[in-house]
Amino acid sequence: MNNFTYANPVKIIFGKDTIKEIAKEIPQGSKVLITCGGGSIRKNGVYAQTVKALEGFEWYEFAGIEPNPHYETCMKAVEFIREKGITFLLSVGGGSVLDATKFIAAAACFEDGDPWKILSEGSGIKKAMPFGDIITLPATGSEMNNGGVITRVSTEEKLSFASPCTYPVFSVLDPEVTFSLPPRQVANGVVDAFVHVMEQYLTCNEGNSLLQDNMAEAIVKTLVKEGPKALSDPNNYDVRANLMWASTWALNGWISCGVPEDWATHMIGHEITAFYGIDHARTLAIVLPGVMTVMKEQKSKKIIRLGHEIFGIQGDDVIEKTIKAVENFFEKLGVKTHLSDYNLGDEAIEKTSKRLAERNWKLGECRNITSDTVKTILTLRK
Amino acid sequence: MNNFTYANPVKIIFGKDTIKEIAKEIPQGSKVLITCGGGSIRKNGVYAQTVKALEGFEWYEFAGIEPNPHYETCMKAVEFIREKGITFLLSVGGGSVLDATKFIAAAACFEDGDPWKILSEGSGIKKAMPFGDIITLPATGSEMNNGGVITRVSTEEKLSFASPCTYPVFSVLDPEVTFSLPPRQVANGVVDAFVHVMEQYLTCNEGNSLLQDNMAEAIVKTLVKEGPKALSDPNNYDVRANLMWASTWALNGWISCGVPEDWATHMIGHEITAFYGIDHARTLAIVLPGVMTVMKEQKSKKIIRLGHEIFGIQGDDVIEKTIKAVENFFEKLGVKTHLSDYNLGDEAIEKTSKRLAERNWKLGECRNITSDTVKTILTLRK
Repeated sequence: MNNFTYANPVKIIFGKDTIKEIAKEIPQGSKVLITCGGGSIRKNGVYAQTVKALEGFEWYEFAGIEPNPHYETCMKAVEFIREKGITFLLSVGGGSVLDATKFIAAAACFEDGDPWKILSEGSGIKKAMPFGDIITLPATGSEMNNGGVITRVSTEEKLSFASPCTYPVFSVLDPEVTFSLPPRQVANGVVDAFVHVMEQYLTCNEGNSLLQDNMAEAIVKTLVKEGPKALSDPNNYDVRANLMWASTWALNGWISCGVPEDWATHMIGHEITAFYGIDHARTLAIVLPGVMTVMKEQKSKKIIRLGHEIFGIQGDDVIEKTIKAVENFFEKLGVKTHLSDYNLGDEAIEKTSKRLAERNWKLGECRNITSDTVKTILTLRK
Repeated sequence: MNNFTYANPVKIIFGKDTIKEIAKEIPQGSKVLITCGGGSIRKNGVYAQTVKALEGFEWYEFAGIEPNPHYETCMKAVEFIREKGITFLLSVGGGSVLDATKFIAAAACFEDGDPWKILSEGSGIKKAMPFGDIITLPATGSEMNNGGVITRVSTEEKLSFASPCTYPVFSVLDPEVTFSLPPRQVANGVVDAFVHVMEQYLTCNEGNSLLQDNMAEAIVKTLVKEGPKALSDPNNYDVRANLMWASTWALNGWISCGVPEDWATHMIGHEITAFYGIDHARTLAIVLPGVMTVMKEQKSKKIIRLGHEIFGIQGDDVIEKTIKAVENFFEKLGVKTHLSDYNLGDEAIEKTSKRLAERNWKLGECRNITSDTVKTILTLRK
């Protein structure tokens, strides 16, 4: 096990009818800005509950944050914050709204020139506005981590950031608000959380971090068991609660403690989303089986363990069968796993691997996935 | 799943040669008091590393904190703190030293009369001095929770407390400092952590909290696999690291989120320790198989799950075989599981159940374990 530091200050408020708790968590006298996306929170009652909970606060609203949130939109919010003297941000929505809110919180306090540098140069965030969130879509883990991903439309770039300053002060997780999610978003969330675990578990690491491996499997078992049920039995509270809590722990910094991390699937997927606007989770479902296949020697022990522990695979060809089982799991959720399913082909493969060549990134836990490897991976996923 | 709130602010600094990191975590200008137990930290190098790390700080030492730490000793430390104007406490030792340090931190700030009320009346702790720790014995999870257990010698009472104010600011977990632990303490630590998980997992709860159950099993699998190895291969770093990290997560508030909790085994065991001075973990090893046997109908689904998932038990009589497997696991670690092994018998059973009758406590996750049930449980463990 490698040395590590672990600290996660987020206060989680979990359960039925908990949105009203936010009034106790936001400092009295705060000028609050609700950040949100499209209209779904107005249809499912979340917006009404939020507004009711904010009675007595001076509050404003900044709507229209996109999936794969745009830098350009975030900077409009920063302008609004300055104009109104906002002191506390409240993200109401899914991981995209929350990622944007984190970036807005940091950009509003950024004093080192253009806040795009936070993304392009990894310029250190020195402070950020305080913010909390009501999360409406279990998927990204953003509610209990300090990172986010932002897209710049003008340059077709999708880049990530993280800072000890950008943890939510609190996160409200009410599984009931997920009852009304469209099946596509539910499926995307399960795939996203599943791949988050894989990025931290399915590496060359060979078993000297037993608790982390066991915990990663605990999360994946939950996703594999409950994911399909959330689609077939959408009003089952415990299923929704288990999925929501598992998604949070898939990416809150815990299972990566003391172990190597991969993230190649995400890095490749981000480029496909940046170019073609394909849902984040769907790009992961395309890429992961390719990464597993091309890197199968390096990852062999962990792929075999995944096959045994999660999919109950025994006998010959465990590696190949496990990769197929992962693909089947995604397909069973209704998430297609080949480029051609999204009308993409050679041009997408060229463009994506060229972009990674330009960035000169070496991906994967051993930093041995080059742009040529990416081309091989994507060619397998045509 | 029940509603819950989860927040754990402790900063964990984990790994080889990390004691030196404390200098960065203690506020500059602090007057530091090292709290510690007997002499073991002077023999294994921990004391020397601590003193070196504190170079530049004004620091003092309060030694002699006992296993099952005494209220009387804690109050002497409080006096010393006032005398010297101490501003930061640094616990160096195992869970007993840390539990005592938490109580000292709270008692030094207690303004509502005799601090014994924190224990006897559960009087609210309103504030506490800041403290960090270097933990030398994986067992109690005290390094990542806000609770402690204190014994009053004069009245033979052992009582617990907890408060949001009594989380460590930081905890240093260096697995190398555990290499030199006596086998008895290693075994006690594994049993203690194992029973912590059981108190939160082995209840009437029947599977509507899948992630918590999977995570509890992840911890137990680690303890069952690595515990015996720590005894047979004491200098194996990864084994020690896995055990240390698993013990922390066995009782840091995570696996109890949203589920019922038992704690009958601990409550009964505390009384046996208070009367007879038997090691805490050894009392748990005596009591748990008795609790499982007497409460087996209420806990049946979870006992069966434990048998399947952890001990690989299939076929007939899974419940009985699982209880035996737990007992065998303790015995294999060298921890005896019957009262007679400690020269205790009917008198201890009478005295312990009488004390619980006086307290009028109803124990267990369904509050249905009375003093009569305790007598039945202990009679099975003669």
